[in-house]
Parts: sequence; C-alpha cells; structure tokens
Amino acid sequence: MADHRATIDKLAALLGDRLKTGSGELDQHAGDEGSYAPIRPDAVAYPRDTAEVSEIVKLCAAGRCPIIPYGVGTSLEGHVIPVRGGVTLDMSHMNSVLEVNDADLNAVVQPGVTRVQLNDELRASGLMFTVDPGANATLGGMASTRASGTNTVRYGTIRENVLALEVVLADGRIIRTGSKARKSASGYDLTHLMIGAEGTLGIITELTVKLWGVPEAISAATCAFDDIDAAVNAVILAIQSGLPMARIELMDEVQARGINIYNPDLSLPEKPHLLLEFHGSPATVEEQAEAFGEIAAEFGASDFKWATRTEERNRLWKMRHEAYYAAKSLRPGVEGLTTDVCVPISALAHAIGEAKRIIAECGLVAPLVGHVGDGNFHLITLLEPGNDTEKAAATEMGHRLAALALELGGTVTGEHGIGFGKLKYMSREHGDAWDVMAQVKRALDPQNILNPGKVVQIN
Amino acid sequence: MADHRATIDKLAALLGDRLKTGSGELDQHAGDEGSYAPIRPDAVAYPRDTAEVSEIVKLCAAGRCPIIPYGVGTSLEGHVIPVRGGVTLDMSHMNSVLEVNDADLNAVVQPGVTRVQLNDELRASGLMFTVDPGANATLGGMASTRASGTNTVRYGTIRENVLALEVVLADGRIIRTGSKARKSASGYDLTHLMIGAEGTLGIITELTVKLWGVPEAISAATCAFDDIDAAVNAVILAIQSGLPMARIELMDEVQARGINIYNPDLSLPEKPHLLLEFHGSPATVEEQAEAFGEIAAEFGASDFKWATRTEERNRLWKMRHEAYYAAKSLRPGVEGLTTDVCVPISALAHAIGEAKRIIAECGLVAPLVGHVGDGNFHLITLLEPGNDTEKAAATEMGHRLAALALELGGTVTGEHGIGFGKLKYMSREHGDAWDVMAQVKRALDPQNILNPGKVVQIN
Repeated sequence: MADHRATIDKLAALLGDRLKTGSGELDQHAGDEGSYAPIRPDAVAYPRDTAEVSEIVKLCAAGRCPIIPYGVGTSLEGHVIPVRGGVTLDMSHMNSVLEVNDADLNAVVQPGVTRVQLNDELRASGLMFTVDPGANATLGGMASTRASGTNTVRYGTIRENVLALEVVLADGRIIRTGSKARKSASGYDLTHLMIGAEGTLGIITELTVKLWGVPEAISAATCAFDDIDAAVNAVILAIQSGLPMARIELMDEVQARGINIYNPDLSLPEKPHLLLEFHGSPATVEEQAEAFGEIAAEFGASDFKWATRTEERNRLWKMRHEAYYAAKSLRPGVEGLTTDVCVPISALAHAIGEAKRIIAECGLVAPLVGHVGDGNFHLITLLEPGNDTEKAAATEMGHRLAALALELGGTVTGEHGIGFGKLKYMSREHGDAWDVMAQVKRALDPQNILNPGKVVQIN
Repeated sequence: MADHRATIDKLAALLGDRLKTGSGELDQHAGDEGSYAPIRPDAVAYPRDTAEVSEIVKLCAAGRCPIIPYGVGTSLEGHVIPVRGGVTLDMSHMNSVLEVNDADLNAVVQPGVTRVQLNDELRASGLMFTVDPGANATLGGMASTRASGTNTVRYGTIRENVLALEVVLADGRIIRTGSKARKSASGYDLTHLMIGAEGTLGIITELTVKLWGVPEAISAATCAFDDIDAAVNAVILAIQSGLPMARIELMDEVQARGINIYNPDLSLPEKPHLLLEFHGSPATVEEQAEAFGEIAAEFGASDFKWATRTEERNRLWKMRHEAYYAAKSLRPGVEGLTTDVCVPISALAHAIGEAKRIIAECGLVAPLVGHVGDGNFHLITLLEPGNDTEKAAATEMGHRLAALALELGGTVTGEHGIGFGKLKYMSREHGDAWDVMAQVKRALDPQNILNPGKVVQIN
C-alpha cells in the first residue's frame, strides 16, 4: 500500500486536531456492520464545512491518497472499509439541519445529519422525512448507497426523495446539482448519478430532501397466514389493486419463532406474518384497511391485530425493528449475515419459494424478512463464528440467490448496495453497462482516489 | 459542414430503401415545433430493430457522421434539428408494444411507440401510462427530453415512470440499464443519466415503463378567481396540505379570453381559472374534491363546474388541451413562442406576478397556462411573423424570465428541455456542473457524434 505520510502531514497542518491518527480512531473507522474483515485507514479527518472538504480533496488529489467518506458506518457491504488505505472523511461535524422549508416541503441538511435527528428537528413542523433503512444512518450515507426501507412502497427510496445536492468532486471543485423546483428538464441528471455512487464519483456535502406531511391518521396491522405463498400472494394482489399501503412487511415462520424467543411477552403463532401500515385521512385509512382485510381473507389470513394509537403501533413495529436481534436469538452467539435480493413483484412468490429451498439445501438457518411491497427480501443467515463449513454454505447460498434474482429479472441488491462485497455480481447483472459505469468513473475521478475499489473496478 | 457521402452510401447498402435522401424526407426532418430555422439532415434512416441501430451507429462512428434520434418531431428547443448535418434516425418503424405485464404494472415498448398508441393498446387491461406532455410524442422522445405534463403532480414525470432502458452507445455497444425490480442499489444510475440527455449520450431503443391502474372514480372541476394571486395561493395551500390532486392547471384571464374566442359556445368569466382532476375510489375522490372546495372558497373562488362523467370531463379538459390554439386566436395569424420556467412552489405567486409585469414591460401579449402544482408555467407569446421588434422583445422577455426563475431557486426549463435553444442559460443555471456534464459527454461520446450541439458544448 502506498505511503501517504506526506499528504497526512499536510492534512494535519490544515485541520489541526480534527485530523486523527490514534489507533482507537483508526479502529473505529476500519469496518462497517457487514461481515468483512476490518482494514484501518491511515488517518481520519473531520471536516467542518464544504470548503474544508474541498481543501482536503485537493491535498489528497495532489498526493494520490484515497478518500473514504464515512457517515456512521452502518453499511453492510464494506462500503466504508479503506481497502487501499488513505484518509477516512468522517462527516459527523457537518450535521446541521440548515433549512426547513415548510412551504416547499423540503429541508436542506448537511450530510452528517441522521434520519432520527432530522425527524426530531421536524417534530414541531408536522412534516416528516420518510426514508427509513432501519439503522439510524446519515443522510449523506443513505444517498450514497441509494437506501430505502420499510415505507418505500408508499414514499419511494432516497432516490425519489432528494431534490438537489452539493458535491465535492475528485479535483476539489464544488458543484450543485438539481434545484428546489419539483422538476426540471435542464441537462444531465447529475443528482441521480451521485445517488448510489457510494462516494466514488464525488463527496456529498449538502442535500435538499423532500418532506411529507405527517398523516392525519395512521393505522397498523399484523396478520398470520398458513403458508408463505398465501402471505406473498396477498401482498401481490394488494399491490396490483393499487392499494396505497405505507408499509407492508413479511416475516416468515422462522422469524416469528425468533420473535417469540426474543420477546417472551409476545406469543405469535409461528406462521408467516404480514405487518402493515396505512396513512391518510381517518376515512381513507379505514377504507384501505378494509380493502386489505378483504384481500387477506381471500388468502386465509388469521390473527389480525390492529393498532391506531401511537404506543400500540410502536409496540407492533418494534418486532420488525428488532428483527435482526430476534433472528439471532434463534441461535445464541451466532453472527447474522444478511442477503438483499429484489425481484419483480410477479416473481416474488416463486423467488421466496426457491429461497426457502436453497436455505434447506445449504443446511442453514436463515429467517426471512422483507419489504415485500417492493419485491425486496432479506435472509438473516445465522452462522457460528469460526465455522468454515457454515461460512462456505452461506457463500454458496448468496451466489445461488444472486443468480436466482437475476434470472427472474431482478437485482442482487435492493437497498444495501455494492461496496466491495457484491462487486463479484456486477458484470453478471449489468454486462457492458458495468463498463460504462467505469467510463463515467474514469471521467470524473481519473486518479481513482474517491473510495477506490467500490462499485466499479478500474485498476 | 463535413461531407458524409461515403457514410451515407454505406448506410444505403445496409438499409436499402429505408435510407432516404429525397428532399421531401429531408425537409420533414429539418425542424421541430419550436421557432428555430430548419436545417436539413444529409439523410434519414429508418432502423427496424436494435441491432440495426447499432450497425448504423458503428458506420456513423467510423465516418464521424452525426446521428440525430427523431421521434415525431414535437420538441420545442431545436432538439431534432441537425445543426451539424448528419443522419436523422427516424424511430417510427420501431413502434411495437413488446410486453404488457399486468402483474408488475409495467410495459416494455420500442422507442417509436407514442403515448396515445400505448394507452390505446392498454385499454382492455385497466392500466394506463400517465405521462402526458400534450403532444402525442413518442416514448423514446419523452424519455430523452425528460417530459412531464398535466398529471405529473400525482404520477411524476417520465423520470419517475421509467424502470429500465436498452440503449445503443456512441460506439455501437448495446447496453441495458435498470431492471423490472421496483428498486435497486446496484451501481450507477445509468437509466436516469440517459433520461433527459436528449440523445447526446446514447440512443434509446427500448423502454420499460411503469403503468398505473385506471382509477375507479375520476372527478374534474374548474373554478374562477378574481385575481391570479388568489388562484396561485389556493394551489400552494392545496399542495402544502398534501391533497393528492391528479391534475391542477392554471389559465390566466388572457387565456380565458382566448378560449372564449376559440370556443364561442363557452362563455367563461374572463378571470384566472384553475382546472383540476381527482383520482381514487368514489369516496376518496369526493373527500378530495370537498377539501379542495374549502381551500378554493377561502380564496374567493366562484363559477365552480364539476364533471364526473367521461364526456363532461373530456369537454372540460378540451379547453386545456387546445390552449395553444385558443391563445393564438387572440391575435389571428400570429406565431406562438412558449416559455417554460419552473420554480419552487413557495415562489410561484411571486414568479407569476413578476412574469405578468415583465410581459407588460416588454409590450407583449402572452397568455399564461401552467402545471402550477409543479411550479411550472408557460407563457404563450403571440408574435406577428416577421416583426423584428416583437421578436427582440420576446427574446428579452425570455432572458428576464430565465433570470427570474434562477434567482428564485428554480430552473429555466420544467419540461421542454435544452436542445440548442436554451444552451445560453446552462452555464448560469449549473455553473461548474455544466462542465461535469461535458466531461460525461466526452467519456461516452468522445467523437461527439450523438446529437452534437445539444445540452452540452464540447467543441
């Protein structure tokens, strides 16, 4: 690995004690929440504004030193792991909500703002930011990884919720993409080029995001089905009927068992469950809930629980938010490894059926949870630490699931992104279009200093 | 201009009588519906499939011959005018609807399919394609210009309605971008890079577009306001209240006068009007209409007309669809020149007030119509052919409106695009980001053969 001491000395002169090289700091920025081995950066920089990000990038460009943007490290595919060393750019000092524009239903934020922080600051306004990937990620990180989550089915992914960006390019130039107008036909869509680029084309230093009015009424529900096909087919019919569900989540019978272990107060039937939420006026919410109830009944749903009050709803959703920990309680002491395929809705029942068969053939325990309204589901594969046989089986399962999703016209990642963990599938998913991505990368970052080794392979 | 005879001979050998060089054909492909002087291409090619588009591009690349993709020529900013000569690629033979996937709410179409054709073919399915820019444009053209129109406020622009593309690149490679999955976090968003690129980065040869269920109930309405501020403020409040209107259009008092002249049966009050449409279940449509009625009443609305039956609704919307012709009837014999700025909703009343002042100061007649739910409005400037004073005044007005939109945080074009007509505003709107667009163009089309002279300036 190249020696970046000269660059780091210049950065220290620029940033003073906001440039860290202590081993605690380096360890803290060496990994993410995925399963890949950590690698330390050479230093961690804490910029305080866009101008400083630009200065840092210029110094790194002069020294050909890699720069890895870092939010709170909740990525899962090694996005923030400095595979070629270099400087990690921790954006946590750039965490101000700069504007809340009630009249235009948008907010301007720095990239280090987290989704919980933004929604806390919005509380008095009656507005909400809707993208919720589970983790309390930063908005810069969410935009960079094209995050989504439970209420995407109604409000869209981060892609549909970013109007404009400020970005520092690989040569230190600062650009603005998009505007606060709701639409534009003016030139190439650089905003969407940066969203999902995982920091490889530019460093996001400001975001203008859409806000939504907090709905007048919210109603949540759970119900159980005798088999997973029935649950999935109810979802498919609900989507095809145009029912505007705010959330529709699936948990399989294995996950239900995990929840019962993790929450001894609950005693769910150990069957596949759907968890739903409806947003709107009291009348429309009631209408939607009724329409869903009719669809679910067609597929033999039972054990309906409804919740309209906030605390009841929170209790109900808590089991979804705790899914990962509940899954792990099925095999205490294990590590959880999460898959993320997404397929067309019409292929979802088949895909889930095949996934269950693949789990069994690989001899693994892997509860299933999913944002099934989007065709996206996760297997939380439970692995004994250090058990190489299980690890190899999990790798094999990941390959087979990826192949399945692509055969069905889907994608290897609905919301977790590529990092370096899914590079191996890029050529198969995109063919020559992956080369086009590399052409774009070379044009905008010819020295390959922005988060090198992620999304594309150019040298 | 370069001599492309050798390339054209090779194309003739490839395409036979689907390569046209007769003057009638050349004239027919020399201009669009905007006001720019026509320029003939050297030849017009009618490819019949993607493989043939690729062969044509390879021959043109070898001869450095420009290629101009052409739908039905309804662009307004010179998009399809071959400013550097070359071969126009008329996509009208590639006009098949390849798949309608009811279960996934999408369709796969060739680029020469028009929106009316697609909706006709969808009639039996109970599904609809929603993007409607007025003209019966092709889907390839609409994607290339990032088109939108009257029901964008509910269903989004073409940007939100394209899932996947097949594209032929400047070297003849054929790539696929996106997938039929509803979301993905897999790599750079090449789909959105191609949308709005106006054929300068690749030639769209297939589109997978979203479809929506035809709503169970549709209700339309018009109402009049005493002044334009009241009308615009009613729109702003409706948007801010989260009212899910399917359409909300503004016509000013000048346009109302034009409609009365054009349709002697109608006798609208010569006041600003809003035209609305609500989609949903019978109950939700009624609820929305009531909620809007209350908002409109706050701003002194009068002359409400409601229409729920198809023929009544069509009569009501006919006046919006005929707006351009109705405007022109205010000054028989004139040409209409259309502006297209778009601003944040909060700035809309101010922008429209200023626009009216600018029209008056420039001494022009320019009725106003607008997709005001998106902050987008058009002035149809009525100009006497050959009157240079009026033309200069209209140019001045265009500059002042563009400057106004940018000052207010908006864009110089909400939906018409750049072509070469709005190149003059690109640097001011995008700053260094315009240079980044040029970097992307150079990377993907280093010879500058794909629709050269549009969107970016690279040589």
